[in-house]
Amino acid sequence: MEKRKVYFDNNATTPMHPEVKKAITNALDVFGNPSSLHAYGRHARMLVEGARESVASFIGARPDELLFVGSGSEGNNTILSILNSQCRMCEYNTCSGKELVTTRIEHPCVLETSKCLAERGVRVTYLDVDKDGKVDLDQLKGSISPRTGLVSIMMANNEIGTIQDVRAISRIVHERGALLHTDAVQAVGKVPVDVTDLGVDFLTLSAHKIYGPKGIGAVYVRKNAPFCPLIRGGHQERGRRAGTENTIGIVALGKAVELRSVEMADEEKRLRRMKETLRKGIAEKIPDIHFVGHPTDSLPGTLNVSFEGAEGEAILLYLDLAGIAVSTGSACASGSLDPSHVILATGLPVECAHGSIRISMGRENTFDDVDYMLSVLPDVIARIRGMSSAYARRQ
Amino acid sequence: MEKRKVYFDNNATTPMHPEVKKAITNALDVFGNPSSLHAYGRHARMLVEGARESVASFIGARPDELLFVGSGSEGNNTILSILNSQCRMCEYNTCSGKELVTTRIEHPCVLETSKCLAERGVRVTYLDVDKDGKVDLDQLKGSISPRTGLVSIMMANNEIGTIQDVRAISRIVHERGALLHTDAVQAVGKVPVDVTDLGVDFLTLSAHKIYGPKGIGAVYVRKNAPFCPLIRGGHQERGRRAGTENTIGIVALGKAVELRSVEMADEEKRLRRMKETLRKGIAEKIPDIHFVGHPTDSLPGTLNVSFEGAEGEAILLYLDLAGIAVSTGSACASGSLDPSHVILATGLPVECAHGSIRISMGRENTFDDVDYMLSVLPDVIARIRGMSSAYARRQ
Repeated sequence: MEKRKVYFDNNATTPMHPEVKKAITNALDVFGNPSSLHAYGRHARMLVEGARESVASFIGARPDELLFVGSGSEGNNTILSILNSQCRMCEYNTCSGKELVTTRIEHPCVLETSKCLAERGVRVTYLDVDKDGKVDLDQLKGSISPRTGLVSIMMANNEIGTIQDVRAISRIVHERGALLHTDAVQAVGKVPVDVTDLGVDFLTLSAHKIYGPKGIGAVYVRKNAPFCPLIRGGHQERGRRAGTENTIGIVALGKAVELRSVEMADEEKRLRRMKETLRKGIAEKIPDIHFVGHPTDSLPGTLNVSFEGAEGEAILLYLDLAGIAVSTGSACASGSLDPSHVILATGLPVECAHGSIRISMGRENTFDDVDYMLSVLPDVIARIRGMSSAYARRQ
Repeated sequence: MEKRKVYFDNNATTPMHPEVKKAITNALDVFGNPSSLHAYGRHARMLVEGARESVASFIGARPDELLFVGSGSEGNNTILSILNSQCRMCEYNTCSGKELVTTRIEHPCVLETSKCLAERGVRVTYLDVDKDGKVDLDQLKGSISPRTGLVSIMMANNEIGTIQDVRAISRIVHERGALLHTDAVQAVGKVPVDVTDLGVDFLTLSAHKIYGPKGIGAVYVRKNAPFCPLIRGGHQERGRRAGTENTIGIVALGKAVELRSVEMADEEKRLRRMKETLRKGIAEKIPDIHFVGHPTDSLPGTLNVSFEGAEGEAILLYLDLAGIAVSTGSACASGSLDPSHVILATGLPVECAHGSIRISMGRENTFDDVDYMLSVLPDVIARIRGMSSAYARRQ
């Protein structure tokens, strides 16, 4: 009997949608440089602009407000780097405020860029979150000064799934004259996202979280918002991101969002039911656990649970042997021995943070996968806890 | 009869090699995040590291000296930005020299980044080139001061094909204690390139110039050379370039260089013969022309020719109607009405620079393509010149 395979790590990355794969295969022969003026170039340009319209329309933006980038990380780095702009070459270089407000639970690409900006003289304030991972809006109000250039708050957290009230945040930020960026890499394509409705100035999204390929993402830059390119050179993306366009990736991202606009609503409901089944099953079968993340304002398929007396990495490896893929946090933080900064920010003690795993479900998962997980996980946890003298002593 | 199609714009981008397309198709189902610890992640990681070994080996580097980036432009921006490093977060942050020496004929991604660095206090010296596009080595010697942090000189020019003597340049640069970067995007895979033999500290390459896909490139960073990431965040690429790895692109780049190592030598000879046939044919059939670029130290398939009394863009469009794709210079500079900065740097007068086209041949081109070009081009030039009152008056 072949071992059952369950991929529960859709927040790290997703298997491509069959239709996206088909779109890639179909585009393999379209090789012109979209910047070239001849027929080959014009054909490629047409595909790129078609995809731009699809992605823009999916998030309620105008095509000229969208630029394609190589990853969510590049997108977030690009927007934050506006605060580091020092030159007259930049468009609308009015982002004179040199202070950044962000949160303790951002993705490493925001936190590391913030650290770098701090080294370059930008004052950075990190907002706390409550036990469910929600940003304290009163603290936000108190943190924005007249010198605040940018506020960057992620829409949905990659590790615990908590979704922020970006609409309320945007009102607070704009009332105080600052600009708002949201890292929506985990939100776009999973829950409805409309830049106009949310009132954000900048937003980042990525293809490989929503059944598209790796190596392509997009950034929304509100018309007339300040901007400074991270990658300079050719006229691509209206001079905002140099480098020959990744035509295949862009076509695939366009297809991925088109599919999301059709499939997302039903899938969201299905994933929420699956997550609830999983949550109840774990709570019934395994003692001494803590669910982390907001109970309702949360990504439909993301469940973060911490097991006392069990290391997350051990759980991950035992589940891997059983054919189940989960993670201990952000894939981007793998290799780090530190407990998750997100879990710690929710106030869970270090020992619990070490014992947390992230289960993230996607379109290919079924209720059978949930049943299989529930048949495997209790034994895995019991076995690991049995090896833990600290946990054993407590019993 | 179907119109003949001739793609003579291989320096802008190339059609993918059938084996590269196959490699992409085969990799579509490998979706794990290479940073994930489970089986899906490990599989993707294995493919990424295999490709890294292929690319490193192709240029004589060690795998840990190579990082994957989203484009040649990103690679060049990354290396130049070392001069902008101001923070203690950077590795080997010993690039204390704050002066940059580069040339007037670099790609826009180097020139624009240089301008930006100048705005940030970096002193930039632009070296002249002679009529064949060769850098003046004596001027280079005189331009490097003890404050020079980096010298950046492209190996092969994208517009005129001239290849610099990087080995000699490297000796001069290192004798004076500076570091050398070479933009080898147009050289790698077309002529032999070995980083140890050349003695460079940094080198940039790109997949889509050598029958791979767009959206993926690589940067060689000599072991222990100073480095500062352009994109910060996760641990990917040993912390040097954050963002989930573009697995498919990386696999395709690996395959592209593997194929180059087999096909390059024969193709180089064939392209040089084709170029010579084309050059002779044009010289015989069309008066008042100027070939630009070094007669021998040049990319095998690149021929830049300027026609007095004819605008490059008009030639491009007429050829496009005849099914032939050429360019007027860098695709990255399309849309610009300025004459090519490269052609001007060789000393050709502005009116001649306006009349230049770049013919760049690649692996799919045949001698029949050359014959077709030679049967079409004289009429195109004659027709355009006939419309040019200035040219007509001279006759």
